[in-house]
Amino acid sequence: MTDSTPGGPPRVLVVGTGLLGTSIGLALSAAGWPVWLTDAKPGNARIAAERGAGRADEVPDDVDLVVVAVPPSVTADVVAEALDVHRDATVTDVASVKDPVIESLRGSGADLSRFVGGHPMSGREVSGPRAARTDLFESRPWVLTPTAESEPERVQLVTSVVDVAGGVVRVLSPDIHDHAVALTSHAPQVVASLMAARLAEVDDATVSVSGQGLRDVVRIASSDPDLWADILMSNASAVAPVLTELAADLERLGGALSGNASRSGQGGSAGEGPGELRDRNVETIASILALGNHGAERLPAKHGGEATSYVTLPVVVEDAPGALGRLFLAAGEADVNLEDVRIEHTVGRMTAIAHLSVLPAAVAELRSALAAGGWHITG
Amino acid sequence: MTDSTPGGPPRVLVVGTGLLGTSIGLALSAAGWPVWLTDAKPGNARIAAERGAGRADEVPDDVDLVVVAVPPSVTADVVAEALDVHRDATVTDVASVKDPVIESLRGSGADLSRFVGGHPMSGREVSGPRAARTDLFESRPWVLTPTAESEPERVQLVTSVVDVAGGVVRVLSPDIHDHAVALTSHAPQVVASLMAARLAEVDDATVSVSGQGLRDVVRIASSDPDLWADILMSNASAVAPVLTELAADLERLGGALSGNASRSGQGGSAGEGPGELRDRNVETIASILALGNHGAERLPAKHGGEATSYVTLPVVVEDAPGALGRLFLAAGEADVNLEDVRIEHTVGRMTAIAHLSVLPAAVAELRSALAAGGWHITG
Repeated sequence: MTDSTPGGPPRVLVVGTGLLGTSIGLALSAAGWPVWLTDAKPGNARIAAERGAGRADEVPDDVDLVVVAVPPSVTADVVAEALDVHRDATVTDVASVKDPVIESLRGSGADLSRFVGGHPMSGREVSGPRAARTDLFESRPWVLTPTAESEPERVQLVTSVVDVAGGVVRVLSPDIHDHAVALTSHAPQVVASLMAARLAEVDDATVSVSGQGLRDVVRIASSDPDLWADILMSNASAVAPVLTELAADLERLGGALSGNASRSGQGGSAGEGPGELRDRNVETIASILALGNHGAERLPAKHGGEATSYVTLPVVVEDAPGALGRLFLAAGEADVNLEDVRIEHTVGRMTAIAHLSVLPAAVAELRSALAAGGWHITG
Repeated sequence: MTDSTPGGPPRVLVVGTGLLGTSIGLALSAAGWPVWLTDAKPGNARIAAERGAGRADEVPDDVDLVVVAVPPSVTADVVAEALDVHRDATVTDVASVKDPVIESLRGSGADLSRFVGGHPMSGREVSGPRAARTDLFESRPWVLTPTAESEPERVQLVTSVVDVAGGVVRVLSPDIHDHAVALTSHAPQVVASLMAARLAEVDDATVSVSGQGLRDVVRIASSDPDLWADILMSNASAVAPVLTELAADLERLGGALSGNASRSGQGGSAGEGPGELRDRNVETIASILALGNHGAERLPAKHGGEATSYVTLPVVVEDAPGALGRLFLAAGEADVNLEDVRIEHTVGRMTAIAHLSVLPAAVAELRSALAAGGWHITG
């Protein structure tokens, strides 16, 4: 690849100065990489340049890297053009769906040896160059999807972009990426939105009994509908089968609940009484819920190592300035590391329950330290 | 009602010394109320008595209150017996479904003037008298479902039980309660379990891109399958319609995603091109997601008042003893009250992002205090 300044940092062109493109420009510029910026709306490139993401002037042909940060529906075309214009440059993108981009490039005869697809998983609820941040990618996963054609040094260059931006590289095949995000991001968005939609027209008495479980299930239902409709459509072929499986389980569970399970099913008999039918329906429901137990256990532990069991202590926290701070300080003074924290609010009560998760070996110490400090542990 | 010790605390019989019954016994005994304990398994009543929940010896006929804490399927029968044996006593229960209990009592000609149904919403993942805690109900909602027949002083007595146990009283009609928990507790459990079940058989690469959104959606999928199958069956008539509505939305969204939306639907035309069909499908999906936005907004603010908008700052936290404590102390020293906290872990990275929610007026102060303390705010 071209290296105009031998030994110097790579020269980068960012095409598309929205939230992601501008944030990448900010992170690379902060690390001293020369960055040029272009956008279909030149005003956006100028805003990005004014914010310090790079230069909005004439782009040299011999850049080392082109970062294509445009909407998914036009990504393949812009990548193909970048590969064509900058004939030695490595090209990457940031679209949330990868396989359709690569298939389109393959179909158009583009030079795939210089393309390394990427997907920084750093969404925000805002968009545009003004919302960009140097540290948007800090500690977030950034998937790279090299193909068999991708040259190793191209993969290395894009990896160094992720490193400089503070992201965490995950290498996946494009197809596995698309199915993975369908299952771990796109289908959960659908499920959360569908559940939340059921609450849209209920009265206050009904929602007054809501607990933390419901809050957690529907938290991401606040996402931008137009953005997510585009994301779901762009990955439709991977998302639709997951929704079909969900619908099948939902129908099976709903059927058992309504007592409408087929009597001709496995284990049934023509002489089955109502009690036996009920038992079998309960069993059907329990088996689906048990499969959910297994699925929940598949989620990786927080650092990606072996799944670790934490013990969780629920502690009452008054609604007063610094109350949470005093609680965490008490834990810190006991030299106990908090692995996780979840706050549970109760409607109508000016206290919350802080659920503190620690390693099993640290429970006794944390419990006695909090008790000594007058904290009220409720479980 | 009987009051054997004029001016003294009410005399209580707890029938069923599992987690809830024993915890109620502990809370009332701690407040100086005389409590008797019985259980179909006398050994459990003795364990509860040894733990200080009350006395397991002969029960006087003239107790003031009977708390029936047995499984939902036998609650109505045990309540009817208690109303019959203790002819002046107020009777309450703790079953998670209310209308079927009352209908059954009404059908058997029981004295409903002395019955006040209850549902303390204080689940734990454990059960039995050994898991009981004095403060199980602290700051948790406890629904009471008096009927038109319930005498006001009976409602008052049961309310005082909730108060003594530290719970938060919510008065609802039995029917509204059952539909409310179907929507806010039982259906979310189903949705979380179904989503998690899709993860049961995927490979590690797929789950490696999981983010906090998925974690939140499936958190409650770890619940006990047998317990929840019983709960769902006991409230089947209220839960099933919610699942039917979910299935209808899921089918509509899945159809739009697969591009199979009917061309004869509203707004369509025989001459509609592929682009127009796609646009209409995107619109259908966006409208369902937008309904989810509205539903999520219906959830009450943490103290049940007007919905309050908080601003959330994401802060990088190192994985070291006391790191979270120092962060919260810094917020406390800025005299800023943290309204909510959520911790986001990234697989493969030894740091987490702490999302700190504060009132809009407090954002600038928190931001500058944290920046001065060297904290890394990423958004």
